[in-house]
Amino acid sequence: MPSFDQAALEAAADAIAAAGRWLAQRDWTPATSSNFSARLDDAHAAITVSGRDKGALGRGDIMVVDFDGLAVGTDRKSSAETLLHTHLYRRDPGIGCVLHTHSRVQTIASRLYAADGHVRLEGYELLKALAGNATHEMAVDLPVFPNTQHMPDLVTQVDAWLDTGVPAWGYLIDGHGLYAWGRDVGETLRHIEAFEFLLDCELQLRRLRT
Amino acid sequence: MPSFDQAALEAAADAIAAAGRWLAQRDWTPATSSNFSARLDDAHAAITVSGRDKGALGRGDIMVVDFDGLAVGTDRKSSAETLLHTHLYRRDPGIGCVLHTHSRVQTIASRLYAADGHVRLEGYELLKALAGNATHEMAVDLPVFPNTQHMPDLVTQVDAWLDTGVPAWGYLIDGHGLYAWGRDVGETLRHIEAFEFLLDCELQLRRLRT
Amino acid sequence: MPSFDQAALEAAADAIAAAGRWLAQRDWTPATSSNFSARLDDAHAAITVSGRDKGALGRGDIMVVDFDGLAVGTDRKSSAETLLHTHLYRRDPGIGCVLHTHSRVQTIASRLYAADGHVRLEGYELLKALAGNATHEMAVDLPVFPNTQHMPDLVTQVDAWLDTGVPAWGYLIDGHGLYAWGRDVGETLRHIEAFEFLLDCELQLRRLRT
Amino acid sequence: MPSFDQAALEAAADAIAAAGRWLAQRDWTPATSSNFSARLDDAHAAITVSGRDKGALGRGDIMVVDFDGLAVGTDRKSSAETLLHTHLYRRDPGIGCVLHTHSRVQTIASRLYAADGHVRLEGYELLKALAGNATHEMAVDLPVFPNTQHMPDLVTQVDAWLDTGVPAWGYLIDGHGLYAWGRDVGETLRHIEAFEFLLDCELQLRRLRT
Repeated sequence: MPSFDQAALEAAADAIAAAGRWLAQRDWTPATSSNFSARLDDAHAAITVSGRDKGALGRGDIMVVDFDGLAVGTDRKSSAETLLHTHLYRRDPGIGCVLHTHSRVQTIASRLYAADGHVRLEGYELLKALAGNATHEMAVDLPVFPNTQHMPDLVTQVDAWLDTGVPAWGYLIDGHGLYAWGRDVGETLRHIEAFEFLLDCELQLRRLRT
Repeated sequence: MPSFDQAALEAAADAIAAAGRWLAQRDWTPATSSNFSARLDDAHAAITVSGRDKGALGRGDIMVVDFDGLAVGTDRKSSAETLLHTHLYRRDPGIGCVLHTHSRVQTIASRLYAADGHVRLEGYELLKALAGNATHEMAVDLPVFPNTQHMPDLVTQVDAWLDTGVPAWGYLIDGHGLYAWGRDVGETLRHIEAFEFLLDCELQLRRLRT
Repeated sequence: MPSFDQAALEAAADAIAAAGRWLAQRDWTPATSSNFSARLDDAHAAITVSGRDKGALGRGDIMVVDFDGLAVGTDRKSSAETLLHTHLYRRDPGIGCVLHTHSRVQTIASRLYAADGHVRLEGYELLKALAGNATHEMAVDLPVFPNTQHMPDLVTQVDAWLDTGVPAWGYLIDGHGLYAWGRDVGETLRHIEAFEFLLDCELQLRRLRT
Repeated sequence: MPSFDQAALEAAADAIAAAGRWLAQRDWTPATSSNFSARLDDAHAAITVSGRDKGALGRGDIMVVDFDGLAVGTDRKSSAETLLHTHLYRRDPGIGCVLHTHSRVQTIASRLYAADGHVRLEGYELLKALAGNATHEMAVDLPVFPNTQHMPDLVTQVDAWLDTGVPAWGYLIDGHGLYAWGRDVGETLRHIEAFEFLLDCELQLRRLRT
């Protein structure tokens, strides 16, 4: 008997599939890159099966993992990056959804700011779209971590950053894209939309100011 | 008994919802930014409820305010920026609609020209899309006001500018986006489409000319 | 009794409306700019009524003019630029359609190359999309004429250029957009799509090469 | 009696038509440029008839050729570039599909890197979308060949490159676009989507880094 709630899984799968259609329509999940998850309870998350077209997900494309990233009740394979999702659910019960996208703007910004280790976002009204922010008079440093095919290394770096206690909604990986999270799928999509907007403004202003 | 006409409210709500779909499809209202209103009579306006997805508005997402920006016949909350709409209806009976959008082009132009205080638009045939213009042989200065979370400050600045009597169809707020208006929803959309086009041309020409 | 064939008018109106939907979807006809026409016979053309939304044209938005640009059998008003269509039908019986669009790329290129008087397009395979071209090993000079609200001045300049006998598929007007033509609506759309592509490549290469 | 399987042809035609709709929606096949094919067996391929709108292909727009590029069982004409498809099927039985697209990014990159003879793609996670790659820690050199209207010259150059034995998923032709291939239509589309993404990132980073 599965240790998670089947109805919660179906609701999570439908919400993930809807998010995937919205993201794919914007071209932010090219060539079967990206992976998406949502919390089911305090020990399980629903997550996309590896290699599927993210714009055409059905319930059969979503599986369950525990917070060690191990498959539960299935022999399907989740993304190699599953740990980047589950370590967030384990460390913060307020996180209900993690979405990894791979837009051109995210990839370009990650490469351009990799040496700095972060992109500073400052003076934009849209910073208010990040949960908890009530003003444009603040700065957010979106971290850029080095890319690696060895996930535990990335988990260690993300944990060290989160341990500093700064407000955190996401991070970039160099040459790779964005990880973002939120209370639920809707808030996480709002965070992705805000980061995409803010990073694009930064890149375009950088071109215009030189 | 409400002091406004219910049929007028429904017509205004439907027109605002249609405008929202058109603007959201172009990505000019990201992450629940933006707010929209339409005049009902000489003392009331219909306006979007705060925080709603501007691409999927229904009648339930539109409420009524008076020209002090106070809710009428509802306990829902309109945008913190409601005063930026209602002071326009109060000062000019010819204004029937005010739409605030938040595109990347608008945000980038506002930041780039904030120090100048305006963006000069000159020599474009599309200037004829602004109501009352019959030729490309003219210049329009689109003002850029500093951003603030304190609306009365912005109202004071906008009023001072309008008091100079220059022809006016809209303004930018630094890091924040565009406020535009017109006789009705259709004319206001035409003004937004024209400003978006003209600002994008200016930004691209600036890159190409350096 | 009208001097033109009613069935031909209906067919032309439907083809123009379909072209308008295709062009509007690409954002090449913003803010009720643009105007479209198709030849009916050796003395009449169908043309869009002034000020209509070019993405939602119906038969009622298309009227008939003679080759002096005068309305036939209607008191509706065609575009102020009607003469730019009809002088082409008069001088070349091979021209069956004239479409005027107003994209950002066309406007930016027209401003940037106005001083040169033309944009040179060279070395592109897509030059083969222009009727009669069989190779990329050629150059096309797309003229840029100064903008004016006085149409006879423009007609005079276009005629002088066409009188030189160079192969001609269209021209730009400074700050204003593109006029293009072809044997029929389909060929004219192909010419517009090719010019838009080629002008965008030129602008982007210009940025990348400096 | 045809020497190929009719059911295989119909399946290939439907897959090619679906790919064409997907590519045309992204504007990667402008003005009837582009041509598409899929292997039928060890001596025949299905290929698009010349000059058709690639976003609206039906079974009647797909014909059969042998690996010398000659039409089989039809008097319709395939693209002048048919040999660029069939020589790939002849030399590699693992190739099941060849798609030629013509996006702005592909055309611009081809012109900009023609003198170098290739575009180096390095450090991108999305390199993993190319079949057989398991890491971002590698570099792919996408060749750029000079354009010509004489196909055997191009075939000779492509063959010489493939004879070196480097992993190969596609190449650019100067001013002309991309040829890409894969095991089947789906994999080939994934390769095109990856190259388009990677080339666009390269072009944008080049602008941002100068």
